[in-house]
Amino acid sequence: MKQKVIFGVDVGGTAIKFGIFDTEGTLHNDWELPTDRSDSGNHILEQIALSIESVIGKIGIAPSQIEGIGLGVPGPVLENGEVVEAANLGWRCRNVQQELEELSGLKVRAGNDANLAALGEVWAGGGKGCRNLVLLTLGTGVGGGIIQNGRLVFGNRGAGGEIGHMCVEPKETLACNCGNYGCLEQYASATGIVRLAKTCLFNADNFTAAKAGRAAESGKNANFTAKDVWDAVKAGDPAACQAAEIFGEKMGLAMANLAVTLNPEQFLLGGGMSKAGDILLKYIIKYYEKYAFSPCKQVDFGFATLGNQAGIYGAARLALGEEGEQA
Amino acid sequence: MKQKVIFGVDVGGTAIKFGIFDTEGTLHNDWELPTDRSDSGNHILEQIALSIESVIGKIGIAPSQIEGIGLGVPGPVLENGEVVEAANLGWRCRNVQQELEELSGLKVRAGNDANLAALGEVWAGGGKGCRNLVLLTLGTGVGGGIIQNGRLVFGNRGAGGEIGHMCVEPKETLACNCGNYGCLEQYASATGIVRLAKTCLFNADNFTAAKAGRAAESGKNANFTAKDVWDAVKAGDPAACQAAEIFGEKMGLAMANLAVTLNPEQFLLGGGMSKAGDILLKYIIKYYEKYAFSPCKQVDFGFATLGNQAGIYGAARLALGEEGEQA
Repeated sequence: MKQKVIFGVDVGGTAIKFGIFDTEGTLHNDWELPTDRSDSGNHILEQIALSIESVIGKIGIAPSQIEGIGLGVPGPVLENGEVVEAANLGWRCRNVQQELEELSGLKVRAGNDANLAALGEVWAGGGKGCRNLVLLTLGTGVGGGIIQNGRLVFGNRGAGGEIGHMCVEPKETLACNCGNYGCLEQYASATGIVRLAKTCLFNADNFTAAKAGRAAESGKNANFTAKDVWDAVKAGDPAACQAAEIFGEKMGLAMANLAVTLNPEQFLLGGGMSKAGDILLKYIIKYYEKYAFSPCKQVDFGFATLGNQAGIYGAARLALGEEGEQA
Repeated sequence: MKQKVIFGVDVGGTAIKFGIFDTEGTLHNDWELPTDRSDSGNHILEQIALSIESVIGKIGIAPSQIEGIGLGVPGPVLENGEVVEAANLGWRCRNVQQELEELSGLKVRAGNDANLAALGEVWAGGGKGCRNLVLLTLGTGVGGGIIQNGRLVFGNRGAGGEIGHMCVEPKETLACNCGNYGCLEQYASATGIVRLAKTCLFNADNFTAAKAGRAAESGKNANFTAKDVWDAVKAGDPAACQAAEIFGEKMGLAMANLAVTLNPEQFLLGGGMSKAGDILLKYIIKYYEKYAFSPCKQVDFGFATLGNQAGIYGAARLALGEEGEQA
């Protein structure tokens, strides 16, 4: 390797993912380590610095080739690299950017992992080349990341892009995990769509969960997954379709309100549930068209493509910095 | 004058406002011209170039002192200076930045007037020094501007910050001017609060519009203003207070959803209705606290201070550019 390289690191509660990228966004090597969470996560940054040092030696990368390290953290991060809190790691109020710079001797930039996924997708994924994008990650919860004019939106206290906690149903009586009522993630996460389907099943008594069959066999008490629900929607099951309408209405409303605020060029869907594919967009777009302010209707809808590597891509892109943004 | 200067220009349907600023955000001179809207607004840029040229000569400003011209336009503007549409002026799809640069021989940057007001307020007004701010302008309609990490949010087609058209009541049956239903501006504009008060009055039959008196005298058919409504709220009139609750709920919901997306440091209220003062915040904060995601609750609420000069301030600030942003 002779060209400039950037290290992208994504710290999770279980594993630390690493990648070596060139400045064009191509991943050349990647590896993982189990996260050492002992001692309030106090050894994690050492783990990272040592692993990178060892790989630099093994591959033979010259110091002059290295642009820096990007670091994704599962919690809010300020633009200066200070982690407000990362409960999964035991971190609280520490400037990981500064600490890792001291440990590694390299330039470091840090950001929130969900936000960085959006930056990764505009660098080398489903939003490649897009300068105004909103990523909605539909997993166990709903996360997100916002790119505005090529730059990541951090927010004042690192809580920008927490799209899952937009209130889309002020009259909801069931509480969200965050303590509020009517958050988007209560309807649009994998957990949310299963809950909706169960409610519709309970009301309709005709849910068949077509492809999976399990629900059909065991009736109302069935244990089914978000995939089962979307398979049932594809098969035309009325109760599942009713749940999909509620999903679509809440997503369409939230995305219309994001559009009138940020006027993005593209919305991307990511996370495990996005594998259901175009059927999600069918329900979302129906309601997006209803709620969106007319000048903001012209927008593309697509899917994230980097999967759980989006974090290391985005981390590397962040470390590449402004010069890269002009490229 | 020996220091660097910037011209801030705000083009309206009736008048063109001009200001000469130093790089610290102090306004040294200002003047106005009636807008020449003849010939689809084709002479407006000439008007501006000539007026600035004449003032440069009169005051004796050396070419080397001039940083450039900032231009506020009443319609969506792309980051490259292209006006998508400015119906009030007769403009459509023209790059005013480029055109005015050719006419004046000076560097020009253009933006939407409501957005630029936000930039003006963080430069020299109620949000001075703030790098993450949302301005909500409560006038005949509801407008807005978003500052993210010191930079103005334009959006992909110049429609960023159109906060008045966030949908806050999907079940509304009355249409907004934009054709949608349940837009924030239907509840939070001067027009909106008067409509709400009339509805509450009709339902309650006990509206007194205390201070203004007019409504009390003529009953349900009264012609009253937003100021009358807020005066009545201050005097404790039950129907007016009921309208204020609806105003507060819709504003609180919209601002909570902005907060979870952008995580601002400060919200500013501007526009004619903001003169009602702290009573607005009393109703807004009550509902903001209810709907906001916990990590985003830590935010300041304040008022815009530059009035209808915010546009020339923001235009000048835009022309000062990135170097200024680092200052």
